[in-house]
Amino acid sequence: MSEDQAVSIDDRLKLVTEGEFAGWSTWHSDAFEQRAGPFYERHDADGRGIAAFRAEPRHMNGGGFMHGGCLMTFADSAIFTFARDALAGDHAVTVNLSGDFLDSARVGELIEATGEVTRAGGKTIFVRGIATADGRPVLSFTAIIKKVGKRD
Amino acid sequence: MSEDQAVSIDDRLKLVTEGEFAGWSTWHSDAFEQRAGPFYERHDADGRGIAAFRAEPRHMNGGGFMHGGCLMTFADSAIFTFARDALAGDHAVTVNLSGDFLDSARVGELIEATGEVTRAGGKTIFVRGIATADGRPVLSFTAIIKKVGKRD
Amino acid sequence: MSEDQAVSIDDRLKLVTEGEFAGWSTWHSDAFEQRAGPFYERHDADGRGIAAFRAEPRHMNGGGFMHGGCLMTFADSAIFTFARDALAGDHAVTVNLSGDFLDSARVGELIEATGEVTRAGGKTIFVRGIATADGRPVLSFTAIIKKVGKRD
Amino acid sequence: MSEDQAVSIDDRLKLVTEGEFAGWSTWHSDAFEQRAGPFYERHDADGRGIAAFRAEPRHMNGGGFMHGGCLMTFADSAIFTFARDALAGDHAVTVNLSGDFLDSARVGELIEATGEVTRAGGKTIFVRGIATADGRPVLSFTAIIKKVGKRD
Repeated sequence: MSEDQAVSIDDRLKLVTEGEFAGWSTWHSDAFEQRAGPFYERHDADGRGIAAFRAEPRHMNGGGFMHGGCLMTFADSAIFTFARDALAGDHAVTVNLSGDFLDSARVGELIEATGEVTRAGGKTIFVRGIATADGRPVLSFTAIIKKVGKRD
Repeated sequence: MSEDQAVSIDDRLKLVTEGEFAGWSTWHSDAFEQRAGPFYERHDADGRGIAAFRAEPRHMNGGGFMHGGCLMTFADSAIFTFARDALAGDHAVTVNLSGDFLDSARVGELIEATGEVTRAGGKTIFVRGIATADGRPVLSFTAIIKKVGKRD
Repeated sequence: MSEDQAVSIDDRLKLVTEGEFAGWSTWHSDAFEQRAGPFYERHDADGRGIAAFRAEPRHMNGGGFMHGGCLMTFADSAIFTFARDALAGDHAVTVNLSGDFLDSARVGELIEATGEVTRAGGKTIFVRGIATADGRPVLSFTAIIKKVGKRD
Repeated sequence: MSEDQAVSIDDRLKLVTEGEFAGWSTWHSDAFEQRAGPFYERHDADGRGIAAFRAEPRHMNGGGFMHGGCLMTFADSAIFTFARDALAGDHAVTVNLSGDFLDSARVGELIEATGEVTRAGGKTIFVRGIATADGRPVLSFTAIIKKVGKRD
């Protein structure tokens, strides 16, 4: 299972101070995610989360399009950004992640993911979202997250 | 969409001649997949495909377990290994990829994926599979692949 | 596969003239769907579709909650209501239908489904939606529809 | 959510004594499921479950093929047949149900579903299965079931 990347108060979540994503935060703990991304996140005044990154050649596949695994990795990170408030600091894991590949993403495009918690009751949190490439929908995804207790 | 990684005859598919995966083949073209993996594949006498890799610290997340995105990237590669014969050299893309995270995988474990084509009719190919860690099921996945024409 | 229930001009789609769903339309051709429902649909000025029905004892399961199969049948019908314009009269089939059961629905509640086409390119149409019970989310669903040619 | 239809000892599960499904059991409590089906189930000596029913005109849609909702209702019932031992008498609900529609089923065909529990740990049970029509795969499905405590 994939561990919680969305603890609201966590010293592993670093504020970016320069570059395209200045003002956004990024994680400094997920070996795989850091190499795949890094991905950036922020929350608006209403607590609504958004995740993003800039498509680079290293995110592509042999055909010159973004690899499906890259988009799914981004989605598996974004769902925790969307669920931050519902998680309320709890540790959590992904139980199910499903993606519909709507269109291809290319080098240089801005990949953004927005979404929502469709239900947060008890330990199970349901999420859905859409990832876009320069505003064009490329991935529609749903996920089920399960809380597994407070962090140490 | 994620491009076909499973063309049966493709000079980008290289035979591994040494190390743990000697005798297996691996792709030399998918920027993202090479950095995420590399992953290895082979087919038995019946044409049944299997994919595998050894879990390393770089595949993990902050919790010390394999990142869900790593498993989904592996699955998005393995489905083309399973569908090799059904693709018959056609170029194809992933339309849907869904994964149930059954258990966590850890550093040092051998990650293997086996699966089957549940239906291959016309341009749409349906696949399902299971990924294991040292033989323990960690991901159950299904995918829909769409052929998009012959390669150049 | 489940056949298209959403052809915009079809003499099987009857206008309801009385009762709770007066002004809505319902299908008179789907044996299974009629017995499961009937379900009702309408489109607003922007062509956005909505589907609905009133929960009755015959829609429930042994526990007194709406059966998951009833909600999935309703969703498999609603996706064609949402995709009406994208289908443009084409015959189509469901390729994938996935549902997250968010909450239980009870006898007497108004079940409504709203949704959107996330991508309509070529023959493949991607849809997602939410079904509610008296406004409370009970099912989050995604579907992939494939056009299979013009109707006779 | 859809209630548990798989309690191993339950007076609502009746043995069929005549007709095509003599020797199988069927449920006498699920209003929706009884009208959709009824569906029949049995378990072999190894506890492996199988579910089945005979396709009738009332299961079809306007195109003369089995309605996707009928197949999903059957799948939502079959997953509890497969999970009988893992449930060990616990009450449970479906959290996610996903189906790939592989082919169409027609009137008169024998619809059967076989499957397996891919993981049963704690309160969450993962299942996958295949439904066939006269032996021809028509639906590949996965589901996540959550135990919600002992029955009264």
